[in-house]
Amino acid sequence: MKALDTLPLRFDGRTIRILDQTRLPDAEVWLDGTDPDMMVSHIQHLRVRGAPLIGVAAAMTLAVFAHRGARASAVRAAGLRLRAARPTAVNLMAAIDRLLSPTLPRYDADALVAEAERIVAEDIACCDAMGEHGAALIARGEGILTHCNTGGLATVGIGTALGVMRRAHEAGKGIHVYVDETRPLLQGARLTTWELARLGIPHTLLTDGMAASLMREGRVQRVLVGADRIARNGDAANKVGTYGLAIVARHHGVPFHVVAPWSTVDLACADGAHIPIEHRGADEVRGAVGGFGAVRWAPEDTPVYNPAFDVTPAALITSLVLDRGVIPPDGLV
Amino acid sequence: MKALDTLPLRFDGRTIRILDQTRLPDAEVWLDGTDPDMMVSHIQHLRVRGAPLIGVAAAMTLAVFAHRGARASAVRAAGLRLRAARPTAVNLMAAIDRLLSPTLPRYDADALVAEAERIVAEDIACCDAMGEHGAALIARGEGILTHCNTGGLATVGIGTALGVMRRAHEAGKGIHVYVDETRPLLQGARLTTWELARLGIPHTLLTDGMAASLMREGRVQRVLVGADRIARNGDAANKVGTYGLAIVARHHGVPFHVVAPWSTVDLACADGAHIPIEHRGADEVRGAVGGFGAVRWAPEDTPVYNPAFDVTPAALITSLVLDRGVIPPDGLV
Repeated sequence: MKALDTLPLRFDGRTIRILDQTRLPDAEVWLDGTDPDMMVSHIQHLRVRGAPLIGVAAAMTLAVFAHRGARASAVRAAGLRLRAARPTAVNLMAAIDRLLSPTLPRYDADALVAEAERIVAEDIACCDAMGEHGAALIARGEGILTHCNTGGLATVGIGTALGVMRRAHEAGKGIHVYVDETRPLLQGARLTTWELARLGIPHTLLTDGMAASLMREGRVQRVLVGADRIARNGDAANKVGTYGLAIVARHHGVPFHVVAPWSTVDLACADGAHIPIEHRGADEVRGAVGGFGAVRWAPEDTPVYNPAFDVTPAALITSLVLDRGVIPPDGLV
Repeated sequence: MKALDTLPLRFDGRTIRILDQTRLPDAEVWLDGTDPDMMVSHIQHLRVRGAPLIGVAAAMTLAVFAHRGARASAVRAAGLRLRAARPTAVNLMAAIDRLLSPTLPRYDADALVAEAERIVAEDIACCDAMGEHGAALIARGEGILTHCNTGGLATVGIGTALGVMRRAHEAGKGIHVYVDETRPLLQGARLTTWELARLGIPHTLLTDGMAASLMREGRVQRVLVGADRIARNGDAANKVGTYGLAIVARHHGVPFHVVAPWSTVDLACADGAHIPIEHRGADEVRGAVGGFGAVRWAPEDTPVYNPAFDVTPAALITSLVLDRGVIPPDGLV
């Protein structure tokens, strides 16, 4: 398998290493993710995150595992464990299915490696295509609000929604990015700010509840978010908080775009009601976890509601920015 | 001045003590607030918070200061410093204006004390009246969503919005309270959960961005919030995040009520655009502060947007629940 050197993932020909995203922005810690069960753990603990990236990372791990001589039954079993590591992002399932597909000539480690390399190359190319299509939508001087992290850390390319902003910035459009902190896991505050600062893109951090006030002041001309799964009717699951943001954008007449690669589209899924939503542990909401360790601010036994994702109905989405182009949300089939 | 023993404030005839709300829920620390400049600092650092409570606390401090023999000019100067401690809540200004009013017979410490005692008694009675009027709106088994803290900690009575929930609970209506954590200062996660647990009211904590998803699931029948200032046209300033919640409630057809004493109404203020909005420091958004100390999770120099309040337009408010009764938001004049 070819060597790879990206912002969140590296492969030197022997070892897959992942940047531990739970330690950012204060520390850049690289962890071994070569073994499939290590990678399952990294995905479940969000050390590797971002719907496209977890698909790529899982595929690479499985391909390397096969290439090292694991038996077909062990490769299949490891693939199924990787596939089940998180339930909402469809890219993970799609990537593993491609590697385990019976349409591959026969069980052949080289074929798995080649397929994983295609997944990597596609992710990079998809990001570039989305960046190009999306940047064309953006006018000079726009304020753009985003949620969660959809940048180079979420893919092996330039990212999805954040990749669009990067291309608009590089084209000299003079954008300003407003970043929702994205509770409970603070991907906006920890990761998106870190990426924007590295890229030199002007930005401002706010808490999730401040987005409406910012729009009321006329400072937001567009909302760009990613997606973890898009149903056939255009309903899109994304990081919790996205749905409320879409409602608030509609109230203020602000265009709301979902930026995602075609691998995020699940045509087998009729609508958002059929997208499984992962619920996570109560401690994430009772406090916060970061480079500083874990803190708790709510009373210890407080009952918690903690869905990791929510579903934005197609009716609230202005357009889908896909690698194939910009389409209306009801234009998938 | 008469002794007082309430959840957030005590007076034993000599010393005013305030419960440090920045240390809750993990520690109950009482601080001296007898001196007016101490109280200014407590208010600015949110150790004393809640629009009604800061009015009462400031009035008591000023009355005790006068009663101890401070000169008229010193009382007036201290009153002006207290009045300016926070810009948005009108109750603070109204309370100080009552004590410094030229219509008081003459400068007379006893008159100041009597006025402060009236303010205390009114706050308690107002809370009871709001609780009664508001609880009558609530049907059996409702899920009620709230934001920030509007309970006994925010007043010297049973609270405003949370006082309504308390009365509904005591009436056996079997309500369930959903609590927005209320970033950046986490009043919901730290204070409202603590009060609800003490009162034995079933509740669930969520992050601010999860409210839309909860409403989509049909689990919220009503939103009850407080206010820091209500303009003549019914626009209401409250803790940042309230405005977005009102938009999301309207989208789902969920009634949205603002519960506040008449002292929160500022008839001199034509509409929400004339309410001054306090902006606070960047560190509140870059991380969090609590009993555990201070943590930062965003990159150190990240630029921040941090208004403490936002304005919900009257058009999004179903009704105002005042001590005088329940009225439509355009029914103030």
